Amino acid sequence: MMNLMQYRSLAEKLFADIRELSFDGVGITRESYGRGESAAADYLRDFAQSEGLEVGADRAANLVFRAPDAAPDAPVVWVGSHLDSVPQGGNYDGLAGVVAGLLCLIAHRRDGAAGAPVEVIGFRGEESAWFGKACTGSSCLVGKLAAADLQLAQRTTGETLGSCMRALGADVEAIGAQQALFDKTRVKAYLELHIEQGPVMIARKLPVAVVSGIRGNFRHKQVVCLGDAQHSGVVPRWLRHDAMFAVADLIMRLDEHWRVLLERGTDLVVTAGIVGTDPAEHAISRIPGRVAFSLEARSRSTDTLEAFYQLMQAECAAISRERGVRFDFDRRLLSEPATMDRGVCDMLSQACVARDIAFDVIPSGAGHDAALLANAGVPSGMVFVRNQNGSHNPREAMDIDDFMLGVQVLGDALERLAPGPVQA
Amino acid sequence: MMNLMQYRSLAEKLFADIRELSFDGVGITRESYGRGESAAADYLRDFAQSEGLEVGADRAANLVFRAPDAAPDAPVVWVGSHLDSVPQGGNYDGLAGVVAGLLCLIAHRRDGAAGAPVEVIGFRGEESAWFGKACTGSSCLVGKLAAADLQLAQRTTGETLGSCMRALGADVEAIGAQQALFDKTRVKAYLELHIEQGPVMIARKLPVAVVSGIRGNFRHKQVVCLGDAQHSGVVPRWLRHDAMFAVADLIMRLDEHWRVLLERGTDLVVTAGIVGTDPAEHAISRIPGRVAFSLEARSRSTDTLEAFYQLMQAECAAISRERGVRFDFDRRLLSEPATMDRGVCDMLSQACVARDIAFDVIPSGAGHDAALLANAGVPSGMVFVRNQNGSHNPREAMDIDDFMLGVQVLGDALERLAPGPVQA
Repeated sequence: MMNLMQYRSLAEKLFADIRELSFDGVGITRESYGRGESAAADYLRDFAQSEGLEVGADRAANLVFRAPDAAPDAPVVWVGSHLDSVPQGGNYDGLAGVVAGLLCLIAHRRDGAAGAPVEVIGFRGEESAWFGKACTGSSCLVGKLAAADLQLAQRTTGETLGSCMRALGADVEAIGAQQALFDKTRVKAYLELHIEQGPVMIARKLPVAVVSGIRGNFRHKQVVCLGDAQHSGVVPRWLRHDAMFAVADLIMRLDEHWRVLLERGTDLVVTAGIVGTDPAEHAISRIPGRVAFSLEARSRSTDTLEAFYQLMQAECAAISRERGVRFDFDRRLLSEPATMDRGVCDMLSQACVARDIAFDVIPSGAGHDAALLANAGVPSGMVFVRNQNGSHNPREAMDIDDFMLGVQVLGDALERLAPGPVQA
Repeated sequence: MMNLMQYRSLAEKLFADIRELSFDGVGITRESYGRGESAAADYLRDFAQSEGLEVGADRAANLVFRAPDAAPDAPVVWVGSHLDSVPQGGNYDGLAGVVAGLLCLIAHRRDGAAGAPVEVIGFRGEESAWFGKACTGSSCLVGKLAAADLQLAQRTTGETLGSCMRALGADVEAIGAQQALFDKTRVKAYLELHIEQGPVMIARKLPVAVVSGIRGNFRHKQVVCLGDAQHSGVVPRWLRHDAMFAVADLIMRLDEHWRVLLERGTDLVVTAGIVGTDPAEHAISRIPGRVAFSLEARSRSTDTLEAFYQLMQAECAAISRERGVRFDFDRRLLSEPATMDRGVCDMLSQACVARDIAFDVIPSGAGHDAALLANAGVPSGMVFVRNQNGSHNPREAMDIDDFMLGVQVLGDALERLAPGPVQA
């Protein structure tokens, strides 16, 4: 098996150079389909070509790196992640996976390693921060971008997503018609290395992890609980319709269901990110008559999301009866969970075991391009690398040693992915 | 016993005339120490003088109505309430008690009824809406207005409370020195009729009620719960420090303590009137890291308030440990409860029983001038009259028949208050 650790200083140089291209004075800014993303793409194109690789783009303007001698229609394994970042973000969210793929591709080429031919994809437009829509590059590729989404405006320039894509050579007509822009039968698997965006691996002292699935979610941007705003001193408990007590009651009932479901091994997180009494009427000495709140649940399992949604509705009905309030819901938004391929996950896990690397199999709470490919039928897997301080901020802090362990696991898994179809 | 029902049409005329003087196009506005309050005072002065009564003012500029033949230093019973209203309020909040007192005084005089001589007090400045301080007229009388309060500015004109009082003839120097401005030994009792400001009597179909005590309260204008704002998808339950779940937990624990305390007969209401995640950082997909909320508990019992405060602190400590959050409290504000005099309450209750009027003994959640007099050592009692739609709004709706029952109870109690000291 090849040793990828020799590429440590190359990795450091690539990260450092691209950091310099993307530094905004506070953090890293690589606009989707814009300046920073393209600067990183151009840098990597030049670098890859200097390594003798071939660099092109797919019909959605995502970058594709491959060996020059690869047969264009031969079965391949894709490795990649995204090139863009949020405004004032960190350097590793996305870029780490593209660099990891390139290191594997270079090692394959230099060392003549076994395993499936590799193509590295540098996705564009993964961050929703710029156009309000996540994973646009991979969505276009799998034919899942809604035509209306091409009209989304960039947060600062106001340019539409469609015109930005077109300027980069994307086939906007095919994208608008929701055509799949790749040959699914040719892609044996998709592997993505990404920093963890949560604190689990730090807390559990795991340098790498294998991702079991990517959570979907249901969301209500705004639920309104309506009670009766009255003088706080003169209405006894039995005559109150306190919207705030009702919402607190709902949150605690959901918390208890959540706790019980976790004990049964269910994957779930629950958040009420925005909660507030109504400034137009609230006062210290007034019983809240109106509380607005957002509600989000995420799970790897569609069934869990559906079951939890029904629990939530049942509790709202019970609280409405008990407390004399009403809950008004806006439109429910759904995002589909994705399951990582069992075979690919096993190969990643076996690579960790073989190298004696501490790891665990954990879900991803955040969305990734891998979810789009998995739901399009490409057997997909992800390697998480430990990272401090979360992501989407300049304090993001991946250790390069952890990263190289992740790259090694990725490279080892690629060697195990022998030519021929992956077992689902 | 005299029959006060004959004064029904007089009561209607007084309410109608003063409504006309105070109507602002939406509701009733009688500014404390200002135009509307003085208009009502002037009207009632003219009316009382036309009835042959003597009308003066005490050293805090509150109106005093008495029989012209009354010995100025003889023991008396005070009956009264306040002349002012909130902006766009109702006609009966305050005024009902002054009119009720005048009807009793007129009846005493016309019918030569037995019982203690009566003086009617029309308090000024009871509503906190104008200067941010409640019960200023009665506070001045009992020497409890803080000198600093004289500098409070009127909400619209900006004039200070002190200068408004001085313009009406109040002895602002004595008030600032917190001198008691009345001879406590001369006042045998204080009786006040007031509309109920809550929904209890409507719900329980009681036209009148006897007030057992006036709730005090503790308040925190702002408590801040600090957790850790993180991505909602990537942090599992065991690593979360969700400030909103923590505040919901606190509210539900207080709700449960409250329920149990009520079952033990404790008087208590609990309100978190203002609650909100932090707009500077909150988002649907972000775990709330900061929630600010107000907290108020009211009770007739100082011991209950103190015990509940300690329970609240213990729960905050437990939640802090369990959820990894912190609660930061601003200054605790306290307002003393007042107990109505047992002897006076009994007389009021006996008057209800003798007339076969459905009533009950209930606490007052809102503050009243009677609380100041009771805490100054004057045996005090209150009669509540049923009222729909709460108070402090134009929809306030007292039935004149209910009012006359209250006046009758008040008059009967005055007859029972024989000369000589009231038993405490």
